[in-house]
Amino acid sequence: MLKVDIMLIKNSQDEVKKRESSFKIIKSILNEKGRRDLYDLTGLSGGFIASENDLNLLETYVGPAIFEEELETLGKEHLGGEKVLAVNRTSSGILATILSLVCENSYIIHYLPEFPAHPSITRSAKLIGANYIEFDNLDDFHIPENTSLIIITGSTMDHKVIDEDIFKEVINRAKMRKIPVFVDDASGARLRTILFNQKKAIDLGADLVVTSTDKLMFGPRGGLMAGKKELINKIKSKAHQFGLEAQPPSILAMVNGLKSFNGENIKNSIEKKQELINLLNNKSSGTLGNVFEETPTGVMISEESLKNELKSHRLLDNISSKDCCFLLAMNLLKNEGIITIPAVSMPGASPTIRFDLSSHDCEKLKMETLADKIFNSFNS
Amino acid sequence: MLKVDIMLIKNSQDEVKKRESSFKIIKSILNEKGRRDLYDLTGLSGGFIASENDLNLLETYVGPAIFEEELETLGKEHLGGEKVLAVNRTSSGILATILSLVCENSYIIHYLPEFPAHPSITRSAKLIGANYIEFDNLDDFHIPENTSLIIITGSTMDHKVIDEDIFKEVINRAKMRKIPVFVDDASGARLRTILFNQKKAIDLGADLVVTSTDKLMFGPRGGLMAGKKELINKIKSKAHQFGLEAQPPSILAMVNGLKSFNGENIKNSIEKKQELINLLNNKSSGTLGNVFEETPTGVMISEESLKNELKSHRLLDNISSKDCCFLLAMNLLKNEGIITIPAVSMPGASPTIRFDLSSHDCEKLKMETLADKIFNSFNS
Repeated sequence: MLKVDIMLIKNSQDEVKKRESSFKIIKSILNEKGRRDLYDLTGLSGGFIASENDLNLLETYVGPAIFEEELETLGKEHLGGEKVLAVNRTSSGILATILSLVCENSYIIHYLPEFPAHPSITRSAKLIGANYIEFDNLDDFHIPENTSLIIITGSTMDHKVIDEDIFKEVINRAKMRKIPVFVDDASGARLRTILFNQKKAIDLGADLVVTSTDKLMFGPRGGLMAGKKELINKIKSKAHQFGLEAQPPSILAMVNGLKSFNGENIKNSIEKKQELINLLNNKSSGTLGNVFEETPTGVMISEESLKNELKSHRLLDNISSKDCCFLLAMNLLKNEGIITIPAVSMPGASPTIRFDLSSHDCEKLKMETLADKIFNSFNS
Repeated sequence: MLKVDIMLIKNSQDEVKKRESSFKIIKSILNEKGRRDLYDLTGLSGGFIASENDLNLLETYVGPAIFEEELETLGKEHLGGEKVLAVNRTSSGILATILSLVCENSYIIHYLPEFPAHPSITRSAKLIGANYIEFDNLDDFHIPENTSLIIITGSTMDHKVIDEDIFKEVINRAKMRKIPVFVDDASGARLRTILFNQKKAIDLGADLVVTSTDKLMFGPRGGLMAGKKELINKIKSKAHQFGLEAQPPSILAMVNGLKSFNGENIKNSIEKKQELINLLNNKSSGTLGNVFEETPTGVMISEESLKNELKSHRLLDNISSKDCCFLLAMNLLKNEGIITIPAVSMPGASPTIRFDLSSHDCEKLKMETLADKIFNSFNS
């Protein structure tokens, strides 16, 4: 008989409940110990920088007049392109783009450096009744007849970055067929350019790009799009129709996030990462040998390596590998005050536990302390 | 030969451009004259009340832990229901609800006090491939086989309010068929209850309700939903999947908008309305006789009455009636600093020019001055 692992988190609705439980834990830590004892290492801690004057202008029809114009300038500097559009989340931008440019039964072709794709792409394709094909290597890559959109993921949820030559080749092939190219550069717009010295997606020839303003920069949770004016106009109109655009407070926070952005935090994280890796290896001396892997800006524990590690110790034997990640993430939050993505993520996000050392809260945390906290979370 | 009116604003993309032009005018008034010379009389001026302490908590995973719990309490007080959900806009909430509860080829039945329906309902129905039927009277109203959702509009974009007995009857018929009832109470949640002494939608038996937190209250542009826990959980999960939920800054502003809400502004607007109507009638002494109509909280100029008025003066003869509204709204903004919805609205919104006297900015405006400004806008 096949042995079936127990699944604690079975569907999207369970993921929402998990997120709600985490919020309760966060609230109790805040009340009992204070903000200092919470360490948001998601790399996603949404910033909200605002002056007194900014706040006075935050009204539906007055604020946007000011902030949208500023965002136009700063957004084009950050991403390139002819016009900018702020969306409620990167996922909303992906939905608005697919609703605007893709018709039923046509093909969406997606190239990404590693599976799986971000669920918002596959869900939006399904919603409009498009055919969806994805590739993670150039040998198989092809563009069928009746393709309406080509999507390239610059950097995955687990921070796997695309090779720039492949990026260019996919764009070349799309251009030959005159099919618009849309780059999901959620973290890539900074990761690729700052750590991998790659060009901006638009400068590589993409027609459209979206980035997450809370990923590796101190902006709000939200999406910033840029690209060809004609396409952005279409997408903007669709976004307004379905309520997918960013609201004035988020636009203000995007403006101030972009103003305060510099790549130093991201660059500094490399040194911190080396220190943390050494500490973790020394401390574990074999017992947790293979569970830690490097990411561009930190350390991660993947679903697979955690499950294997637990297996070798005969722990949580009948629990699914996703749930193992969720349980460890909850331990990290509850006992150590460390917030990682699986504890608080939206349905369908990656279960990988990442410690992003470019996070704002990492500035108040010694790597020695962090290594201890990570070890403790395995023992509780 | 048929005479065809010229259309200046032809489609959704033109509406986006119109909105962008208005933002530029607003910005230049702000820069040259200051905030005092702008009068946002849309009744939609999105509030953003926040303390220093609130702002420090505005981070993706920390802020929501606090604000969502507060919103749960305040939202249930305002709307009733078992659980609350904050969405990016009322339109996003309508989309999330239809995506969650309606399947392809099933029927959505919509009862509203007056046509036309809000475009987000018809667009969402079309997106999912549902059949959509709308009624504005009980005699024709019926519920076909295979109906998955019944929508009731509590108060239209032009503030036409439903009769409470009809409201109850539609809910009764839906209950007999065990079909969920979703109430679009964008402005109605306050207009119906405060000025018309009607009950909350949930107390009348609805399963779900959505309201706009910037309509007749000083909250941000956004939507607040409430209703049966099981349904809200489904919709919340769908909203998270497509990026339709409200972000932390909006949730904070909803919390503070609800805390500061009282119905006095809305009640006071009735007295102001009488004063304004008298002034307008005295001033016009026949010349603009039929162009002004009352709304529950102010005065409006409808597309039809404006066109008829202009016709009787042989003005703008070959311009479409919608464009006449847009032109008058642009005059009001540019020359008088008065912001009305047609100048800044999202695609598909009503072209009716409403002066909402419960608006925050109305406090700094004498009715005498407002009447002059309205008259001047016709002459420029």
